[in-house]
Amino acid sequence: MKNLIDIKDLSIQEIEELIKVAQDIIKNKKKYSKKCNGKKLATLFFEPSTRTRLSFEAAMMELGGNVLGFSSASSSSTSKGESVSDTIRTVGCYADIIAMRHPKEGAPLVASIKSTVPIINAGDGGHNHPTQTLTDLLTIKCEKNRLDNLTIGLCGDLKFGRTVHSLITAMTKYKNIKFVLISPEELKVPEYIKKEVLEKNNIIWCETTDLEEYMQDLDILYMTRVQRERFNDEKEYLKLKDCYILTKNKLKKAKEDLCIMHPLPRVNEISKQVDDDKRACYFKQVEYGKYIRMALIMKLLNEQNDNNIDELKREKEEKIFDSIKCQNPRCITSENDDLEPIFILTDKEKQIYRCKYCETILKK
Amino acid sequence: MKNLIDIKDLSIQEIEELIKVAQDIIKNKKKYSKKCNGKKLATLFFEPSTRTRLSFEAAMMELGGNVLGFSSASSSSTSKGESVSDTIRTVGCYADIIAMRHPKEGAPLVASIKSTVPIINAGDGGHNHPTQTLTDLLTIKCEKNRLDNLTIGLCGDLKFGRTVHSLITAMTKYKNIKFVLISPEELKVPEYIKKEVLEKNNIIWCETTDLEEYMQDLDILYMTRVQRERFNDEKEYLKLKDCYILTKNKLKKAKEDLCIMHPLPRVNEISKQVDDDKRACYFKQVEYGKYIRMALIMKLLNEQNDNNIDELKREKEEKIFDSIKCQNPRCITSENDDLEPIFILTDKEKQIYRCKYCETILKK
Amino acid sequence: MKNLIDIKDLSIQEIEELIKVAQDIIKNKKKYSKKCNGKKLATLFFEPSTRTRLSFEAAMMELGGNVLGFSSASSSSTSKGESVSDTIRTVGCYADIIAMRHPKEGAPLVASIKSTVPIINAGDGGHNHPTQTLTDLLTIKCEKNRLDNLTIGLCGDLKFGRTVHSLITAMTKYKNIKFVLISPEELKVPEYIKKEVLEKNNIIWCETTDLEEYMQDLDILYMTRVQRERFNDEKEYLKLKDCYILTKNKLKKAKEDLCIMHPLPRVNEISKQVDDDKRACYFKQVEYGKYIRMALIMKLLNEQNDNNIDELKREKEEKIFDSIKCQNPRCITSENDDLEPIFILTDKEKQIYRCKYCETILKK
Repeated sequence: MKNLIDIKDLSIQEIEELIKVAQDIIKNKKKYSKKCNGKKLATLFFEPSTRTRLSFEAAMMELGGNVLGFSSASSSSTSKGESVSDTIRTVGCYADIIAMRHPKEGAPLVASIKSTVPIINAGDGGHNHPTQTLTDLLTIKCEKNRLDNLTIGLCGDLKFGRTVHSLITAMTKYKNIKFVLISPEELKVPEYIKKEVLEKNNIIWCETTDLEEYMQDLDILYMTRVQRERFNDEKEYLKLKDCYILTKNKLKKAKEDLCIMHPLPRVNEISKQVDDDKRACYFKQVEYGKYIRMALIMKLLNEQNDNNIDELKREKEEKIFDSIKCQNPRCITSENDDLEPIFILTDKEKQIYRCKYCETILKK
Repeated sequence: MKNLIDIKDLSIQEIEELIKVAQDIIKNKKKYSKKCNGKKLATLFFEPSTRTRLSFEAAMMELGGNVLGFSSASSSSTSKGESVSDTIRTVGCYADIIAMRHPKEGAPLVASIKSTVPIINAGDGGHNHPTQTLTDLLTIKCEKNRLDNLTIGLCGDLKFGRTVHSLITAMTKYKNIKFVLISPEELKVPEYIKKEVLEKNNIIWCETTDLEEYMQDLDILYMTRVQRERFNDEKEYLKLKDCYILTKNKLKKAKEDLCIMHPLPRVNEISKQVDDDKRACYFKQVEYGKYIRMALIMKLLNEQNDNNIDELKREKEEKIFDSIKCQNPRCITSENDDLEPIFILTDKEKQIYRCKYCETILKK
Repeated sequence: MKNLIDIKDLSIQEIEELIKVAQDIIKNKKKYSKKCNGKKLATLFFEPSTRTRLSFEAAMMELGGNVLGFSSASSSSTSKGESVSDTIRTVGCYADIIAMRHPKEGAPLVASIKSTVPIINAGDGGHNHPTQTLTDLLTIKCEKNRLDNLTIGLCGDLKFGRTVHSLITAMTKYKNIKFVLISPEELKVPEYIKKEVLEKNNIIWCETTDLEEYMQDLDILYMTRVQRERFNDEKEYLKLKDCYILTKNKLKKAKEDLCIMHPLPRVNEISKQVDDDKRACYFKQVEYGKYIRMALIMKLLNEQNDNNIDELKREKEEKIFDSIKCQNPRCITSENDDLEPIFILTDKEKQIYRCKYCETILKK
């Protein structure tokens, strides 16, 4: 592994190795405090995200390394018309590893192709955010002491929430996982995830619009925000919004050792009273995020030599169609004329191609 | 002491201890250069202030520590609707101590309540700025070799200038302090400070509109800016503005060892010719600011264990009035619906309550 | 040398010394990794420039030093009306050395006059950018193993490009240098450079509008951008623009050991196909920029004691004309009322005076 662009780049073994290292860091912090002496992390945030940026920076500092970078595009050279590739090659002269956030889907993948140093995707629009998923997995592992035999409730916006989709995909790799999908009708998990992920892996799952219905069964409750702007009908939003706010009262029937998670920032979807409940794990989750990033930074800096593994993984069945471009307006190919649109055959039978960069299905 | 929110949180002994440590740092810089190895300071500036931010960052670096954070709200998560409390709890997972500036009065106090790491108020609107006052005290101590037996001239905007009010309050704790209050009529020291601070402590003071009148008596001359926007009458401003500009000429009768101070930034209230006068101490003051912050950071990191001292101090006589809110539009309670308005009885006799967060008097 | 404001501040010996140190750094990185332990660099970017800022920051970090500062004026105190001089004197209390970029020409010179720590000009508007020129010289020295006996092609905007003018001026100090000046008619090298620099130094040069005409003769090809907004006539721009884009095809006749340079960022003036050509040196140039800045930072920190050398250099023949101001709207004197306009007699015979700050010729 040279880069981390998509959580799917990691095998189950690699994920477990990262979790193991992170757990060792938690136990033996001092042991790691000089591991990255003399190394530099660049945090290139073409779009602001304090939480993620500071998590990476703290991680690098706790490893004894240095940090440089920018926190928004306005203070970068992009405003002068430079391509992402050129920015990355330049910064590769200054830093040993790069964590990059970008509003366009696929931008970190583009960056990684020409980069001379490892790239970590710290979020590309609504597409991927693999270190959030790693954070979630470490949290579950540390709080429940296992990644299998779990009933996981996912609540809120299950339609657009990328962290939820990634977590579902990641957890299906473990044994005896059950999902309770809690959302308003408008924000249900998309069909393709149900079919391609849940059913394909023979996962037991159910759907409900009621946050309390299966409360007593849950080992994990993963809360996300229900955003007003997702609703076509304002009245519908007003009617529903309080249903998806977790309060002390709604926790009455919950297990003693329930683990309540949230990717943060929250607005009001978890009442502040819940913060003092020992089952509230969302601030611990923040801390786990730092530790898993420490493990990841070390792994990528150590494995720079075996360059071509992940390239090999991706090289199969790429195709260029004459004069066909990706139709996703948020895809990096939409703003980068130099970039050849490439599609990957993801389903041989149905002849489904997806954009190499943003994974949107090609409509020919 | 776990946090520094208000200069009044510090006893005279604590202030003197800080000054002593700062003076030792000045003499033995090397001795302190690794005191904070492996520690991280977060500078969370929800409102920009280069001078204060860089002072904190330099202080932490000279102690061997690391720095992370943000320099304006636009690059923070607040724009996503996160509460100050949540931001602070998150950053508490990344840093060992936080210096925070916020446009809303009381925000650092709110932050400190839930914080797991020490909070330093680096300025909350026009309310508190305790490290400026500590800077001023260290400057006086180093330049005059004493904090008592001083005649202190305060010049400029004495009505709105918070640094002036804090300095008056802090200095009244020392013996034989006299004040000369120099300002236009419009910008005189407010009545409540004259009554509650000066008269209560039997301080000798006089008022004048003439910068030169008492020049020969002053040990300290503390200049501040007279801002155009403070005047109702533009003509009045134009008539007066040059009177409060310190020039070489106006210093003719001043003592040889006068100490001229200014919180900076200045615009034109001290002529540049004065910069070369050996009595000009305002750039030294900048440097003292760094040293006192070093002392403060060390103190707070060392004393984290005795958590509850300052909470105890504040706990007396808090009261919640049904449906009464603080009327100050700049108070943090005005933008934070979750925050219960709390008032403190500060004058039993007259039954005066003040907002816990911004100290504005409650009008019932 | 206390500061580096203008490449002309450096003698040929000083430049060669810097190049020698930089080359030693490249060979023995570890040897230098603690040279600036305990030192702090402030990067004060009153105007954003990620590339230059990160280059300085990486340089200081690789020397074991710390970095603080700001990346745009909006997060600085300038917005409160503070003068550049005051900002610099303040930051001089926090840092040991300052790299400063400013939109106004002459601002770093103004800053250096009152500064207590060394100042490096990291670009002042379209005026000077001496570390870019040092970068270019180190690149040529490392790639060609010499600075003399070279035929240098300069292509693109030779009228406004300051890096091109500085490079021409710097290279004329070496033996047997020939220039091929490649540009559209509108963007030819200005007459005063031809006369005062090229002809005065008996340099052999020729002009062409054809990028390929002398390709086979070049040892160096320095590309710059041709900007649409430089043309009066849009049609002319459209007709010409592709002529100045370097492609693989145009390189056919070029020497095997040609060195292709570019100050970056590029837009499209070098085709991406060229990136893989071993003659493409523009990303190496980025790395050389870091190493020469390391050498420079060390030199300035070591030589702080012999303060007055460069002041002596500049002190000759300064003159103040009553009520005559510099007419250049981009000059720092245009925004700083406190600053006395000073002019220097640069040509005795023709009685030509130039502004001390921006070097614009005085029209009396």
